[in-house]
Amino acid sequence: MRSVRYSVEKLTCFCRDAFEKFGFTAEEAAQITDVLILADLYGIRSHGTQRLVRYHKAIEHGSVCVDAKPEIVFETPVSAVVDGHAGMGQLISVYAMNHAIRKAKAVGMAFVSVRNSNHFGIAGYYAKMACDAGMIGICSTNSESIMVHTGARQAILGSNPIAFAMPAEPYPFLFDAATTVIPKGKLEVYYKADRPLTEEWAVNRDGCVSQDAGEVLECIDGKCGAGGILPVGGAREESGSHKGYGFGMIAEILCAITSGGATSNHHTRTRGQGAGTCHAFIAIDPQIFGDADSLRDSLSALMQELRDARRADESQPIYTHGEKEMLASIKNKREGIDVDVSTVAEMIRICEYLGMDSRAYLGDVDISDAKAGTYETNVYK
Amino acid sequence: MRSVRYSVEKLTCFCRDAFEKFGFTAEEAAQITDVLILADLYGIRSHGTQRLVRYHKAIEHGSVCVDAKPEIVFETPVSAVVDGHAGMGQLISVYAMNHAIRKAKAVGMAFVSVRNSNHFGIAGYYAKMACDAGMIGICSTNSESIMVHTGARQAILGSNPIAFAMPAEPYPFLFDAATTVIPKGKLEVYYKADRPLTEEWAVNRDGCVSQDAGEVLECIDGKCGAGGILPVGGAREESGSHKGYGFGMIAEILCAITSGGATSNHHTRTRGQGAGTCHAFIAIDPQIFGDADSLRDSLSALMQELRDARRADESQPIYTHGEKEMLASIKNKREGIDVDVSTVAEMIRICEYLGMDSRAYLGDVDISDAKAGTYETNVYK
Repeated sequence: MRSVRYSVEKLTCFCRDAFEKFGFTAEEAAQITDVLILADLYGIRSHGTQRLVRYHKAIEHGSVCVDAKPEIVFETPVSAVVDGHAGMGQLISVYAMNHAIRKAKAVGMAFVSVRNSNHFGIAGYYAKMACDAGMIGICSTNSESIMVHTGARQAILGSNPIAFAMPAEPYPFLFDAATTVIPKGKLEVYYKADRPLTEEWAVNRDGCVSQDAGEVLECIDGKCGAGGILPVGGAREESGSHKGYGFGMIAEILCAITSGGATSNHHTRTRGQGAGTCHAFIAIDPQIFGDADSLRDSLSALMQELRDARRADESQPIYTHGEKEMLASIKNKREGIDVDVSTVAEMIRICEYLGMDSRAYLGDVDISDAKAGTYETNVYK
Repeated sequence: MRSVRYSVEKLTCFCRDAFEKFGFTAEEAAQITDVLILADLYGIRSHGTQRLVRYHKAIEHGSVCVDAKPEIVFETPVSAVVDGHAGMGQLISVYAMNHAIRKAKAVGMAFVSVRNSNHFGIAGYYAKMACDAGMIGICSTNSESIMVHTGARQAILGSNPIAFAMPAEPYPFLFDAATTVIPKGKLEVYYKADRPLTEEWAVNRDGCVSQDAGEVLECIDGKCGAGGILPVGGAREESGSHKGYGFGMIAEILCAITSGGATSNHHTRTRGQGAGTCHAFIAIDPQIFGDADSLRDSLSALMQELRDARRADESQPIYTHGEKEMLASIKNKREGIDVDVSTVAEMIRICEYLGMDSRAYLGDVDISDAKAGTYETNVYK
C-alpha cells in the first residue's frame, strides 16, 4: 500500500497534541507519546502512533478513563499492587515501573503488579526504563484471549508478551516477544495482503491448523468461542507447543494472579470499565550480585560471541536481541517513519473528531485509495 | 529394549548407598537421591537414577569434587552469590534454594545465583521446593553449549531450562522446560532407535536442518564447532526461533551473568575442576501481593478453566503444567519404575566399582543383550 513519510518530530507533535485534546495533561500526553514513538522507532508499527485509532476508540467508548489515576492498594518494601482504575495503560505502566525502580534502588529488587489497566503499547518500553536506570528490567502483560493452548481449540490465555532488558555494550540486551508464535497484527497483515498462512500459526474454530487469516480473525474478534493463535512451539508437543503455553501461563501468573486482577479470559469491553488488563514490572539492581560494571562486561562479551558465531548463511548477520531495534531506530530518526495511507486517513478522522487542523499536522495527503475500517477499529462496535 | 521393573524403595536404597560409597555423607546421599528419584517418579527418565553413570564418571574424572562445600561469596538481604567449588550440583542447589526460601520468608523475595557447579538434575525439583514452602519458585541452569541460535550454525548457549512453580489445587503449576526445542536425551533415543528426525529439531555442521540424530550427536559430543539443537521455535524467525533463543539468553543471564560464572560456551571438563555450570534460584512469597490463599485460589480457577477448555480432539484431555508429572508419580509409586537392561548393566558396573553386591540391590538380571556405551558414558573419555 502507498505510504507517506513523516519525521519523528512531526509524528510526536501530532500525537502529543491529540492526547492533550483527548483530555490528558501535557505531561501525560508526552508520556503516552514517548511509548508509542519508541515502537515506531523500533519498526514495530503495529504498536506505534499508527495504533492511535485504537486508543481513540477506547477513550470514546469509555474503556479508557482519561481522568483515572493509578492507586497503590497493597505494598511491602519489595512489592506493590497497583489498581489502574481503567486509566490509560501507558500512564499506569510508567508509574508502576518507576515505582519498581525506586524500590529496587532502595532494597535491591522489586516487583510491582497492576490490575484494571488497558493496552500499554510495547512491553519492551518498560523493561528498557529499568535498563536505562542501570538495572535488569522485566515486564509482562496479559491481553484479550487469543492463545489456543496445547490440546485445546479455544483461546483462554492472551498473547502475553514477556520483555527482559539488561545493560550491555554497544547495545543493551532487549528481548520483547509475545508467547504466541505471532502477534495478532501479523494475521491482519496476511489478511489484508490475501496471503495464505503457510506456517503452523493459528487454528480455526474446529481446532485445525488454518491457512486462512480472515477465518482466524473472525474467530478472535467475533468471540465465537473457538479458534485463535498458537503458542510459540506450534500445535504439538513435538514442536514445543507446551513450552510456549507454559511461558504464556508464567506471564498470566506474574500479571493477573499476583495483582488479583482479571486473567485474559475474563477481560471485558464493558462501557465505562477498563479492559481489565494486568501487567507486571520487575526491576533488579545488578549490584545485589556484586559489581554492576563487571556484570555488564560479561553480558557484552557473551553477546559479542553470539554475533561472532559461525553463520548458517555467510551473507546474513547474526543478531542479538534489541540490536535490530537499535539499528531501526537510528535509521528511522534519520529518514523518518512511513505511515500507510489508510492509517493517515484514520489520523485525519481523529483530527476531525478532536477539532485539530489535519493539514497542519499531516500535510495535504491524497487518501482516495485508503481502505476503510480495520479489525482494530471495529473492535468497539 | 527389554526392561526390569524396580520399586521406588529399591531404587532409592541403591542410589543412596552408591552415593555414600562415593564418599558423600548419609544426609548428602539422601538429598542427591531425592532429586534423582523425583525425576524417575515424574517419568523424566533421562534425569533420574538411570543417569547415575553420568555422576559416576564425573566423580571418577574429578569434575565433581565430593568434599566440596558451597560458599556464599556475596550477599545482600534479597540476594546471594554462591560458589559451588565444583561440588555435586544437587547439593549446591538444595543449599542455594533453601537459602533463597529463607530470605524470601524474611524480606518477601530473594534471588540466589550459583557459579562453579555441576549438572543438578531437573530444574523443576528446586522450583518445587519453593512451591512446597508456599512460594512462587523459579529455577534455571546453563549447561554445555548445545543451542544453535537464530542465524548461526554453532552452538553457544546451553539447553538452559527454566522452571516455574506456584501452589494451586488440586495440582500446583509446575513448568520445567529446556529452551531448546528438545533435550539432548531425545536425540539419543532417536539415535538408538535408528529413527529419522522428522521435525525441525537440530542442524548439522553445515547449519542445515538434519534428519540424522547420530550426525548431530557427533557434532555436539565431538565438539566439532558446529551443529546442535535448535531453540524452541525452530530455525527461522517465522516459526519463532528468536523467541526460544531469547529465553535461552534470559536463562544464561539469570545463571551465569549474575553469578559471575562461566557462560555455557566456557564450560570445561578439565580434570579436577567442575563443569563451571551456573544456576539461578528465585523464591517469591505470595504474601507480598496480599492474601496467599486468594492468589492460590485464582490460579487454581484459571488452571481448571484451561483444562475445561473446548478440546481440539474430544478424546484427548487438556493438561496443565505439572499435571502429567503428578499422575505419573502416583502410577510409578504404585507400579514401580522400568529400567532398561543397558542401564541395569551400567548400574551393575557401578556396584562392581564401589564394591557393592549388585544382586542384593538389583536382583539377578540377564544383561546379555545390554548395549555397551552411550554418548553419556563416553563424554569423559
